[in-house]
Amino acid sequence: MSEAKERIDGLKKLLKRENIDFYIVPTADFHGSEYVDGYFKVREFLSGFTGSNGTLVVSEDEAGLWTDGRYFVQAERELEGSGIVLYRMDEEGVPDIKEYLDKKVKNGQTIGFDGRVMSAKLGIELEEIFEGRDVRFACDKDIADELWSDRPKMPVSDVWAVPDELCGENAGQKLAKVRAKMSEEKAKHLLISKLDDIMWLYNIRANDVACNPVALSYTFISEDSAILFIQEEALTDKITDDLKKQGVECRAYDEIASFLKKCDIKGKIWCASADTSYLLYKLAGDRAELIDKDSPTELLKAVKNPTELENIRKYYLLDSVTLTKFLFYMKNNVGKEYMDEYKVGQKLDKMRSEIEGFIELSFDTISAYGANAAMMHYEATEENKAEIKAEGLYLVDSGGQYMGATTDVTRTIALGSITDDMKKHFTKTVCGMLRLANAKFLYGCTGRNVDIMARQPLWECYIDYKCGTGHGIGYILNVHEGPQNIRWRFRPEMTEVPLEAGMIVSDEPGVYIEGSHGIRIENILEIVNELKNGDGQFMGFRHLTYVPIDLDAIDTQYMEPSDIKLLNAYHKLVFEKLSPYFQGEDLARLKTATRSI
Amino acid sequence: MSEAKERIDGLKKLLKRENIDFYIVPTADFHGSEYVDGYFKVREFLSGFTGSNGTLVVSEDEAGLWTDGRYFVQAERELEGSGIVLYRMDEEGVPDIKEYLDKKVKNGQTIGFDGRVMSAKLGIELEEIFEGRDVRFACDKDIADELWSDRPKMPVSDVWAVPDELCGENAGQKLAKVRAKMSEEKAKHLLISKLDDIMWLYNIRANDVACNPVALSYTFISEDSAILFIQEEALTDKITDDLKKQGVECRAYDEIASFLKKCDIKGKIWCASADTSYLLYKLAGDRAELIDKDSPTELLKAVKNPTELENIRKYYLLDSVTLTKFLFYMKNNVGKEYMDEYKVGQKLDKMRSEIEGFIELSFDTISAYGANAAMMHYEATEENKAEIKAEGLYLVDSGGQYMGATTDVTRTIALGSITDDMKKHFTKTVCGMLRLANAKFLYGCTGRNVDIMARQPLWECYIDYKCGTGHGIGYILNVHEGPQNIRWRFRPEMTEVPLEAGMIVSDEPGVYIEGSHGIRIENILEIVNELKNGDGQFMGFRHLTYVPIDLDAIDTQYMEPSDIKLLNAYHKLVFEKLSPYFQGEDLARLKTATRSI
Repeated sequence: MSEAKERIDGLKKLLKRENIDFYIVPTADFHGSEYVDGYFKVREFLSGFTGSNGTLVVSEDEAGLWTDGRYFVQAERELEGSGIVLYRMDEEGVPDIKEYLDKKVKNGQTIGFDGRVMSAKLGIELEEIFEGRDVRFACDKDIADELWSDRPKMPVSDVWAVPDELCGENAGQKLAKVRAKMSEEKAKHLLISKLDDIMWLYNIRANDVACNPVALSYTFISEDSAILFIQEEALTDKITDDLKKQGVECRAYDEIASFLKKCDIKGKIWCASADTSYLLYKLAGDRAELIDKDSPTELLKAVKNPTELENIRKYYLLDSVTLTKFLFYMKNNVGKEYMDEYKVGQKLDKMRSEIEGFIELSFDTISAYGANAAMMHYEATEENKAEIKAEGLYLVDSGGQYMGATTDVTRTIALGSITDDMKKHFTKTVCGMLRLANAKFLYGCTGRNVDIMARQPLWECYIDYKCGTGHGIGYILNVHEGPQNIRWRFRPEMTEVPLEAGMIVSDEPGVYIEGSHGIRIENILEIVNELKNGDGQFMGFRHLTYVPIDLDAIDTQYMEPSDIKLLNAYHKLVFEKLSPYFQGEDLARLKTATRSI
Repeated sequence: MSEAKERIDGLKKLLKRENIDFYIVPTADFHGSEYVDGYFKVREFLSGFTGSNGTLVVSEDEAGLWTDGRYFVQAERELEGSGIVLYRMDEEGVPDIKEYLDKKVKNGQTIGFDGRVMSAKLGIELEEIFEGRDVRFACDKDIADELWSDRPKMPVSDVWAVPDELCGENAGQKLAKVRAKMSEEKAKHLLISKLDDIMWLYNIRANDVACNPVALSYTFISEDSAILFIQEEALTDKITDDLKKQGVECRAYDEIASFLKKCDIKGKIWCASADTSYLLYKLAGDRAELIDKDSPTELLKAVKNPTELENIRKYYLLDSVTLTKFLFYMKNNVGKEYMDEYKVGQKLDKMRSEIEGFIELSFDTISAYGANAAMMHYEATEENKAEIKAEGLYLVDSGGQYMGATTDVTRTIALGSITDDMKKHFTKTVCGMLRLANAKFLYGCTGRNVDIMARQPLWECYIDYKCGTGHGIGYILNVHEGPQNIRWRFRPEMTEVPLEAGMIVSDEPGVYIEGSHGIRIENILEIVNELKNGDGQFMGFRHLTYVPIDLDAIDTQYMEPSDIKLLNAYHKLVFEKLSPYFQGEDLARLKTATRSI
């Protein structure tokens, strides 16, 4: 019997005892973080599925796991033998969790979840679905905790301050901007649970979540006070004092709930249901009228200031140099020495760690060979890895945290002969990446308007990639951030914000053929204003990533002349930017790799 | 003193008497129709602005007119001397009407409008803006009526039945589909005010609005009854009897309000605030909980059935033949005989009227030469027209109502030498039209996803057209219909529906250079399903319009090879489809006009 099956059975027994009929286990900490520390990995503990996105729903009759297209292949493999049913999100005919529960839960039954890890948004939607029905919610307990004897401890790491000169603004200045937005919305208070927003606001970082340099915390901002709830052992006196000088008072992390119950409330509380736990949202709602909108920090953080942009450009270049050298190593040595996904991934990580200003990886390097690359978030380990041979395609998606940037980049390269299909898929992916990067658009466009620029070359071949085309990226922060993104699918409840100058976004189309190969080419783009005229403010993108695109995998028969022009222009830029960092044979390689075709 | 200034001054006096501080005059009949009959043209009467979209707001201090980008040039001209301030909708820094009123209206003041012509949507939004403030609404009167001594009579035309075999379905079958949707939404009643929806539902037509073959009417549908409120003098006994057989009871048009006050209500009423007058919406809301969503007829009507599609394809071809012959006439005779915009427009209208099955024009033909074409909705008249010479560009946007289709098509042609700029603009417009028509997309895409395919060639030149790229088209009905459209701008409140197989949409990019020239190329496209695979249902478009694109205005230096391929492929199809209808010299012309380049 699989471990997962055993644990699900154990959970079912506990649910019976607690009179809970349907138990929901999202993938979340108390802050809705995308990546979560070991302590919070209840869903992974129960199901065995290790992907970063997934929700488990367990009832007497069935355990179901919902995850998105990035993880279908991986989830299928990891759930084998668990008896857990995989629900492929967004596929035709597949109910989402709300539709599932709406249909399955009967009058008199109870839905359970841990109110601290359930997003307020989903909690409220469930309330609405079952309004008027005899269905109870039990949300005061983490039921699975009992089953998890060797559960990791709640993380607590040292908080460090990012020098204000690296941030371009200090916490006091940022608070002033936040309060101006509060005043526009007629909010007297603002409750933020989103960790990267809090880190950005106070120019602090920590390490409570792998790869995300954040500290578990909450903040509650009023007109004349700003309170940071944070684990006290994480702070030094110097940081506490410096924050005090910026008008920020520190209190204990676990005081947030009791504070919300008793604090002085003077008017509406701004609190984003999408980023707040159901528990805190309900507590705040008991005290005052809520303004349920994305926190103002979300957009302020997304639009990088000139200091940030200057550092970002600098580190993206250094990061590009390193990845390019790694790719040259791969192409030159494959077949000559033993290589496997894990080993070469480690090598890249080490090379990146030698860049001055490196802090840590911004996410676990995806080093995937052959069919493994078809799993969008594949992770090779020392135990589970493929040997790399002098044929086929190799994909590497990686990035670093630096004292001035968070990077993210993907390249796919040919390590020898590849099939015509692979060339076609590779070439179409490159066309998509370049066409999006070259798009011109009017201010007011959101990512939904431009997404098709990247997808059209693939859609013309009846191929899609089941993920967004792009995401925002933090500044010495989370590698995925909002509010902007580049996606095509319409969802009535989604937030769409115009693309603004100073935002940075990824541009990462791909082709994923299960059991065969995976291709992704990812550049990070800066959004810039171009000409403004009577028709409006025209905008465009500038590359931040300068890494050659493997010409060995390109077949020009699949390109328009304009695509070839774009590729040559990009390669010309790559050579100009990178050549000062290359000498001798590597410089010659760079010249060849970026030649005009 | 201008006539408009006099009327506005007269209105101001009446407003003073009625104690109204701000008076809103939208452009609408009681049904939110886009085009309105003379009786309802209060805004035009007061302001002198003849465009199809515009709202007038009059206060003691100012009269302001809001209109959209199609009409900026025209409104500026027509408002001259009136003292009315033009508010250019969607331009940066220009407040919309709600923002304007929010700022201007003071406590103790009164906002007035005729509740029968005010959309419920805007009325409710105004209520929300002024909630909690001491602002009164006066909406029971058409104040301007008093000033309008020679006001036209309320229109009433003969209703006629479209044979069921032309519609593919009878009213009873359509009612069954509507009731199924009502049941899905848990609605017990459905109130429809939208005239084309009512015509579609009951397979009837009339002529109460120029070009829109509709009758003033309302319908109220319950589980076991369907009542049509319609002017009795418009009906024959045969139509009344036939409707009765389909389960539809006719009552007097002006009974709707009293009916809503007293009728038997068993549950929620489905009533779209976007398509219902403020007055009726409030009446319905007094009786029951409302479901405020687009009427189910909207989507049912938009997805054409096989019978409709077959007729549409047939009439679009006949319509294309006629327009092509007209364009040949223009190109061959310009400079040889006297031509003006009005005269040649009349000629085209006459040619179209000779097509068997022709009913009337689907809108007033836009026949515009030179700088006049920069006005998107220019109308030449016998008194106000330009002479057409053997140089520059001529634009003609026209369409017909037939016993099996409503057509809409625009072509721009060179009548002699044109400037390089004109060639560039023309060529980029053609590229945009063809690229959109050639786009492949996944089911779930809305018009916002694909709009950039048409705009990108122009945006790359920092040129935009200030209107949507496409709209739906009725079946022997309104030339503009929803719910689908092809637009780029994000508005939080907008309805977006996926593009579905069987819908038809226009594809009409353009370039409008004030004072110089205007270019628009408009084909109508049918949406079709293509390959369905693991990535989803792929979709595409098929042309319904087959009219040559003037190669004299094309400069291939502005095209990608793929654009040239698309143009040649389109022209090959045009020749195949049209050639059976051409002989002799005209056939030779067709061959030349559709040659490969």
